[in-house]
Amino acid sequence: MDRIHEMKTPKEIVDIMMSKDQFSSWLNLKIETIDKGSCSLSCVIKKEMLNGFEIAHGGIAYSLADSTLAFAANSYGFQSFSIETSISHLVKVNEGDTLKSISNEIHRGNKTALYQIEIFNQKNKMVAILKGTVYISKIVW
Amino acid sequence: MDRIHEMKTPKEIVDIMMSKDQFSSWLNLKIETIDKGSCSLSCVIKKEMLNGFEIAHGGIAYSLADSTLAFAANSYGFQSFSIETSISHLVKVNEGDTLKSISNEIHRGNKTALYQIEIFNQKNKMVAILKGTVYISKIVW
Amino acid sequence: MDRIHEMKTPKEIVDIMMSKDQFSSWLNLKIETIDKGSCSLSCVIKKEMLNGFEIAHGGIAYSLADSTLAFAANSYGFQSFSIETSISHLVKVNEGDTLKSISNEIHRGNKTALYQIEIFNQKNKMVAILKGTVYISKIVW
Amino acid sequence: MDRIHEMKTPKEIVDIMMSKDQFSSWLNLKIETIDKGSCSLSCVIKKEMLNGFEIAHGGIAYSLADSTLAFAANSYGFQSFSIETSISHLVKVNEGDTLKSISNEIHRGNKTALYQIEIFNQKNKMVAILKGTVYISKIVW
Repeated sequence: MDRIHEMKTPKEIVDIMMSKDQFSSWLNLKIETIDKGSCSLSCVIKKEMLNGFEIAHGGIAYSLADSTLAFAANSYGFQSFSIETSISHLVKVNEGDTLKSISNEIHRGNKTALYQIEIFNQKNKMVAILKGTVYISKIVW
Repeated sequence: MDRIHEMKTPKEIVDIMMSKDQFSSWLNLKIETIDKGSCSLSCVIKKEMLNGFEIAHGGIAYSLADSTLAFAANSYGFQSFSIETSISHLVKVNEGDTLKSISNEIHRGNKTALYQIEIFNQKNKMVAILKGTVYISKIVW
Repeated sequence: MDRIHEMKTPKEIVDIMMSKDQFSSWLNLKIETIDKGSCSLSCVIKKEMLNGFEIAHGGIAYSLADSTLAFAANSYGFQSFSIETSISHLVKVNEGDTLKSISNEIHRGNKTALYQIEIFNQKNKMVAILKGTVYISKIVW
Repeated sequence: MDRIHEMKTPKEIVDIMMSKDQFSSWLNLKIETIDKGSCSLSCVIKKEMLNGFEIAHGGIAYSLADSTLAFAANSYGFQSFSIETSISHLVKVNEGDTLKSISNEIHRGNKTALYQIEIFNQKNKMVAILKGTVYISKIVW
């Protein structure tokens, strides 16, 4: 059996990533779905995530989107790193809200890929949208 | 004495913001400098901030930059909200690193302003750079 | 009859904008569709639009997307101005290609709105994607 | 003589790029300075560059910045391509204005580099700022 050519599945890769990812763990991120080039996560906004306006800090939606981006991009089996991300915060997020991310692979080339991550609250209102470019390395997971 | 027209100082505003900002508190952000349109913060990378690659999660540098942006933009005395931010992660950040942010006000109009936040590590190497646009409301702090 | 409160239609507004827009005219932009918050344009790549790699200059897809953004955002009847735009160039564009833009209104608030403009070539391949934030003024067209 | 190891100078590379670049030629771009990782260009706003508001179309400042980015990034001798660019338009640009771009290399890695291009008018007021990420190929000019 040729183990060298065996690639890990998207779920196996994300399980490895999540098992070491202490910040995603602090955020209490739940994997909703994971597939090649696609990922959905969720998290519940707790007190420790609020900013000086007593709404969720912008870094929370960003972090949820960034983890979603990382999992979607790495799911093909090659280690991939975020080069550039931009996020628009559209609607205020409050304590107790449940956020859910949905990824959309816009383009996948040999060296770079482009993803869009939408974040919705429990009322299915889009609260933030992130556009992220990743570099795809040759390093196999 | 006309108390209505008394504006709070940048330090007073940021103290109010920080006192309620539980996430910045979790990040253990320290205010290095604060002035009108200008802010510098620092934080030390702890284990809970690492991702699946065992380097700091992209959300940490983003959050540090986003808090810096918020404090710089609000320091004039009018409540201001981030509309759009983009961040480039340039250099890996490790556990124990000390990050320091420096803001640069590129443009300030009546309704919107543009800031650039650079993040450096303890070796003065730039690890990330954020460009952020804020909306300036008429609400006085 | 109260003419003051009569708002121009999206088509009337864009006809005014286009009639004065000399650069869109040089680009030979054609209006495919126009409605409230929505616009589609097309253009054919000519020799004068090529760069040093003998493919379309990045400024061409940007300009097509930026005009689409302007028309979609202004179509409600209030003058609107681009604050921030980001574009990813995904696929090379050659002389003779026909580009078509399609707008997507992601969010519309009181003061700002967010649009995404996708650009396709004649083979329906996405060649570029722009995310644009506009400021909505109170000035009626 | 080992011709294989002879790299072209920044000026030689940009002269080749400019000689074929028909759109930069239409824009009437002038090279102010060119060096490794650094470029400054200028152009004068003509009637054909105006939009429906009778100010310079956003695509003009973008194109000037994008050409500056391309020349700065390619000047090292390896063909480089823009992956992602974001631009903020800060001040209106009028017919007859002279725009000048100045590049700033923020980061240069093995595979990607990050540049910031500032655009000033003849009164030295910043009218636009672009942040651009490029992919550095192994193809020698």
